[in-house]
Amino acid sequence: MKNLNIGLIGYGFMGRAHSNAFRKVNNFFDLAHRPVLKAICARDGGKAKAFAERWGYESVETDWRKLIERADIDVIDIATPNNTHAEIALAAAKAGKMILCEKPLSMDGKEGVRMVQAVEKAGVPNMVWYNYRRVPAVTLAKQLIDEGRLGRIFHYRAKFLQDWTISKDLPQGGAGLWRLDVKAAGSGVTGDLLAHCIDTALWLNGGISSVSAMTETFIKERKHTLTGKVEKVGIDDACAFLARFGNGALATFESTRYARGHKALYTFEINGENASIAWDLHDLHRLQYFDHQDEGRLRGWRSVHITDGDHPYMKNWWVPGLQIGYEHTFIHQVADFLGGLESNKPAHPNFRDALETQWVCDAVLKSAKTGKWEKVPRRAGKQ
Amino acid sequence: MKNLNIGLIGYGFMGRAHSNAFRKVNNFFDLAHRPVLKAICARDGGKAKAFAERWGYESVETDWRKLIERADIDVIDIATPNNTHAEIALAAAKAGKMILCEKPLSMDGKEGVRMVQAVEKAGVPNMVWYNYRRVPAVTLAKQLIDEGRLGRIFHYRAKFLQDWTISKDLPQGGAGLWRLDVKAAGSGVTGDLLAHCIDTALWLNGGISSVSAMTETFIKERKHTLTGKVEKVGIDDACAFLARFGNGALATFESTRYARGHKALYTFEINGENASIAWDLHDLHRLQYFDHQDEGRLRGWRSVHITDGDHPYMKNWWVPGLQIGYEHTFIHQVADFLGGLESNKPAHPNFRDALETQWVCDAVLKSAKTGKWEKVPRRAGKQ
Amino acid sequence: MKNLNIGLIGYGFMGRAHSNAFRKVNNFFDLAHRPVLKAICARDGGKAKAFAERWGYESVETDWRKLIERADIDVIDIATPNNTHAEIALAAAKAGKMILCEKPLSMDGKEGVRMVQAVEKAGVPNMVWYNYRRVPAVTLAKQLIDEGRLGRIFHYRAKFLQDWTISKDLPQGGAGLWRLDVKAAGSGVTGDLLAHCIDTALWLNGGISSVSAMTETFIKERKHTLTGKVEKVGIDDACAFLARFGNGALATFESTRYARGHKALYTFEINGENASIAWDLHDLHRLQYFDHQDEGRLRGWRSVHITDGDHPYMKNWWVPGLQIGYEHTFIHQVADFLGGLESNKPAHPNFRDALETQWVCDAVLKSAKTGKWEKVPRRAGKQ
Amino acid sequence: MKNLNIGLIGYGFMGRAHSNAFRKVNNFFDLAHRPVLKAICARDGGKAKAFAERWGYESVETDWRKLIERADIDVIDIATPNNTHAEIALAAAKAGKMILCEKPLSMDGKEGVRMVQAVEKAGVPNMVWYNYRRVPAVTLAKQLIDEGRLGRIFHYRAKFLQDWTISKDLPQGGAGLWRLDVKAAGSGVTGDLLAHCIDTALWLNGGISSVSAMTETFIKERKHTLTGKVEKVGIDDACAFLARFGNGALATFESTRYARGHKALYTFEINGENASIAWDLHDLHRLQYFDHQDEGRLRGWRSVHITDGDHPYMKNWWVPGLQIGYEHTFIHQVADFLGGLESNKPAHPNFRDALETQWVCDAVLKSAKTGKWEKVPRRAGKQ
Repeated sequence: MKNLNIGLIGYGFMGRAHSNAFRKVNNFFDLAHRPVLKAICARDGGKAKAFAERWGYESVETDWRKLIERADIDVIDIATPNNTHAEIALAAAKAGKMILCEKPLSMDGKEGVRMVQAVEKAGVPNMVWYNYRRVPAVTLAKQLIDEGRLGRIFHYRAKFLQDWTISKDLPQGGAGLWRLDVKAAGSGVTGDLLAHCIDTALWLNGGISSVSAMTETFIKERKHTLTGKVEKVGIDDACAFLARFGNGALATFESTRYARGHKALYTFEINGENASIAWDLHDLHRLQYFDHQDEGRLRGWRSVHITDGDHPYMKNWWVPGLQIGYEHTFIHQVADFLGGLESNKPAHPNFRDALETQWVCDAVLKSAKTGKWEKVPRRAGKQ
Repeated sequence: MKNLNIGLIGYGFMGRAHSNAFRKVNNFFDLAHRPVLKAICARDGGKAKAFAERWGYESVETDWRKLIERADIDVIDIATPNNTHAEIALAAAKAGKMILCEKPLSMDGKEGVRMVQAVEKAGVPNMVWYNYRRVPAVTLAKQLIDEGRLGRIFHYRAKFLQDWTISKDLPQGGAGLWRLDVKAAGSGVTGDLLAHCIDTALWLNGGISSVSAMTETFIKERKHTLTGKVEKVGIDDACAFLARFGNGALATFESTRYARGHKALYTFEINGENASIAWDLHDLHRLQYFDHQDEGRLRGWRSVHITDGDHPYMKNWWVPGLQIGYEHTFIHQVADFLGGLESNKPAHPNFRDALETQWVCDAVLKSAKTGKWEKVPRRAGKQ
Repeated sequence: MKNLNIGLIGYGFMGRAHSNAFRKVNNFFDLAHRPVLKAICARDGGKAKAFAERWGYESVETDWRKLIERADIDVIDIATPNNTHAEIALAAAKAGKMILCEKPLSMDGKEGVRMVQAVEKAGVPNMVWYNYRRVPAVTLAKQLIDEGRLGRIFHYRAKFLQDWTISKDLPQGGAGLWRLDVKAAGSGVTGDLLAHCIDTALWLNGGISSVSAMTETFIKERKHTLTGKVEKVGIDDACAFLARFGNGALATFESTRYARGHKALYTFEINGENASIAWDLHDLHRLQYFDHQDEGRLRGWRSVHITDGDHPYMKNWWVPGLQIGYEHTFIHQVADFLGGLESNKPAHPNFRDALETQWVCDAVLKSAKTGKWEKVPRRAGKQ
Repeated sequence: MKNLNIGLIGYGFMGRAHSNAFRKVNNFFDLAHRPVLKAICARDGGKAKAFAERWGYESVETDWRKLIERADIDVIDIATPNNTHAEIALAAAKAGKMILCEKPLSMDGKEGVRMVQAVEKAGVPNMVWYNYRRVPAVTLAKQLIDEGRLGRIFHYRAKFLQDWTISKDLPQGGAGLWRLDVKAAGSGVTGDLLAHCIDTALWLNGGISSVSAMTETFIKERKHTLTGKVEKVGIDDACAFLARFGNGALATFESTRYARGHKALYTFEINGENASIAWDLHDLHRLQYFDHQDEGRLRGWRSVHITDGDHPYMKNWWVPGLQIGYEHTFIHQVADFLGGLESNKPAHPNFRDALETQWVCDAVLKSAKTGKWEKVPRRAGKQ
């Protein structure tokens, strides 16, 4: 068993999710590497220390540059706001560290290109935390599609609906709220939520060629926590777009934080000539599957409870009928990353994969401004 | 097209459901007979007349004996409270009329025997309105079982849950409330609701051999509408029983009018060695089907939308996706009754079939009193 | 009770649905008028006669112009392909007949304008069969919105998904297939299915100001039943569009006949500041309702079984828990039309209402060609 | 932070679930104690060592008596087959160790009494792993009931349905299969699955006074892994029983391993005068709630996604919409056990609570033999 020393930057929501994954992965997966919680880095030394104690990090840093300089760190894990990803990743690549980066990769495609170039030049293993690929039901969907079960794909539709920013009194910026601050986040729901939908879509259905989008900011001004002043809101509260995939499929995508009644309802549905698939994050342990080859009078959507040993990742957990949850997607991603190191078949999505999502986001935001269909600058083949 | 003159007794809820069926059946089904709404009979002449006008009955009677004497009546349809079924049916059989009788057939098995003997002696076509057999999803369940799809049956469970009598202020007896009056109804949920569950069960899974039951009357006294006095409640508000089928299956049955949140939730589920089936009346147009022969990782309960042309009865209605409702079960039953006259393969359940349900009800009520397992006096083979 | 003589043109699917409604409405609703099935008109005299016999029409016509000339006809009911609506309606209006017209009103907005002018000039009662407004759950949604329960509306999304034209072997045109023939239908899913979605949306959420659309014809050529030749397919197999409502809400609409696994899945969801509503045609007897005013820890989507006496139209049917189906929406529409005659408050949607839907369809089809956002020429206020 | 040294006996399924809970609890809950994985004990030293390495146990024992003798062990955690619980617990109590014992507590009530006496005489903290009480949705149900939301309770129904032993080829006994061996397990589904249902029921609805039960062994003989011979199967494959609670509620309970299509479908529903609650293990993150006080036309079952900060335990996990799974129930139980040590309000269910479940199981098994209603020897008040 080889130790792999982790240096985590950021102690927020994602810092917790990643730490939990590092701590648990070897209890449930047989791997040649073992993540070691070597250092946590955050500007607020007190909070970093408390986090270290809770999670068992061996040391604390308050300057990420120092963390990167440390010889005993193998992996830099970036769990900070979007506007800091590039600078950290460039430095970490230069230092020859493996890099795990929170999604979205970058503030835009241009910035992302530099990041891809940096990791590829440095030859360091790299991965982006688009965790929903590792929901077992979603991974099963990928397998079914790759096996050709669906046949020609006609339709793809995805939504990510939330309702937590409807109140006008919610400030922008500050702890836990940087997602509302366009300077830190780059965009609103597009980079935060649609990026997940797009990542999954590119993985399952190949590249997107063009889009027509609209965005809206329902609450135009909010108090900014850092300045204390009421300021214009720069993010998109909602975004919907039409898309055409390279394979000819039509698509609709939508995300909002104003869909009363939905907490984190990421859903997708794919309609193929022979079969269809649907999934949603609120019941992530189920896959809906319709197979046209079933006998006519008994055709129906099957609700498959993805908890069996022959479902992706599930033989490592409990027994049939006993569900896992959100946090396990991160554990799976670490397991695959570590497995990729061993097998020399790197896990995806890496920086290059995540850049494709960035290009789509860019085209979406541009289309929302121009009111026209926009081509996706470069588009991925099937990953 | 041969006319078949109907004489309906009773203008209540069931009088409406039957009349609607008689009026519509020839619009949707190709049949050699046409029901003609010849006469409606009820003690209250004014109400009978109003009903006749609304539904197009040609004449009105206020004495059912006179109706039975009429030469122009081919079919006597009994839609009156339970305690009147036997007397009317015996007279109608004697007069050589075909008889359609509301369920339950009789007040108890003993009374039912006389009714069966009367119609069989008279040789008149007879049928009991256990309408739920003709929900297309339920009929499909029957077909699947008869094809052997489920294999050996291990479990049967049925429930019929309502919540409309929870209020203490609800009186017993009187218009629309005779179901709470033990003299008119014979029993409470056992004869009213469990009788439906038992009829379906005998049809789908064969005879029941023994039962262990409990009953409860939650509200002990209610004002009686007819006497104006607070009187002891004689019916069972709730009844649950364990059962063993002749085929070795174990069963649980339950019914109550005190299940807050359920209006008319008749549900059943059957677990076989190879497949399972579930259905409920609140979504009567769906059948849940689980097939163990589906590929392992894609096994799941299929929600089949029973609206296709290859589903029972459905080619006579609309197009796939467009549901029918409660009232259509009566239309199907009339269609099958008329079809049975023509083909000389009488439709079921007839009086003899319905008597088996009566014997089970008797055993259930007896067991609730004795606190012991009771054998079902006679039990049906599969119908 | 005043008789209202109906002259129906067309004996297809819609001819059946309308006839059933005319025959049943007085059994269930208290009205001052009674529809009389006076005449059925179709070019094929034999089929018209058979239809008349099945449904009880008193006479048969093979030329709709003759039908319109008949003095004993009060109402012309147009249940023919879309490309015939205008000519018939113009003649019927001129003859002073009341007009019931199948949806969509016309081939396009321009044609629709002439129809509106004709009925308004003639002063004849007129209605278009957008039947889904009269699903009790949908009518309840309208009531809730009009009561202000939802507050400011942020999002509207509607879909109408089918899968019946995926086979390449399906011909275009001919009996039952004119919906695939652009000459008869005018468009594909846009006029056939999205028109329903748009009608409901305009009713519930007011006018649509602009749209961005895409359409696709997946199967480019099909054999034409009438010519016997393989011909280019002129209809849209699928159509999706983004929209902005006059009230500021964002919307997505989508329809296709290539969504494997869906028969007639019309769904809509509306997200307001205080509450959200969702409904789908496959379970038309349910309304999903989320109320943010519910206590926090007990907030959830309520599945309301729309079968109670205090639900729209339902006191006229059965008892709580017993569902009605598709055909009842037509009965409700006739009941409202007749009620409107009596009260002098005409039922909606009339021709003018339906014209607004036509303008939206026009803008959608135009946008799909131009690749740009298109304004809706005129837009309705809330109806 | 005070260390609490754990000595685990058994490395099977439950050994994993407990170990995971011990390892994670301090990452997510603020507690004064920290479980330390001090020793794992199992007869097979090699397997124990492998388990220790995977989970980080500091030492290995192969004789549980030695483990109990160790001064550095604070807590004995019993995760062995049922027939070993008593002997180990008695010894551990005598040695003054805190005891965590897998469910069911004992082979029967008589044995359980001795265990209760032992821990109470020794004054050692004790708890039984009826983990489902700590599903957040189930805990919320408890809170709602204790607040009086449901009013008078009329009905309780619970089921635990599985399908994993339908194959005749499955052997009894041996690794992972001791649950089929009556000598090791004591009973079949009654002690394994119904015990869970009964524990929850006693907690939520108070004591059970009497029961009428039936059991069945569908496969009468199976090969025994240990002897290599085909032997009579001694366990109950299925068990159903009627029950009356002390508060007057009627109940049905059922469990089987022959319900094709269900993996671990533990469900319960409670109907009260004012509200009803339903829950199932296959979607453990949801609670179904019906409130009769909701406005009439908007009454419906609410599907509450139990992932908010104001739901039991959930503020310690992720954000609204992100579900947790099966394993978290064990973490919650450890958190409550540790919290109980600190607050001197011991967590439940303790041995005494679990004994009540044993008495009900005894009565159920007895009734299945006598064919009569049996009283529960002693019954608990509400815990």
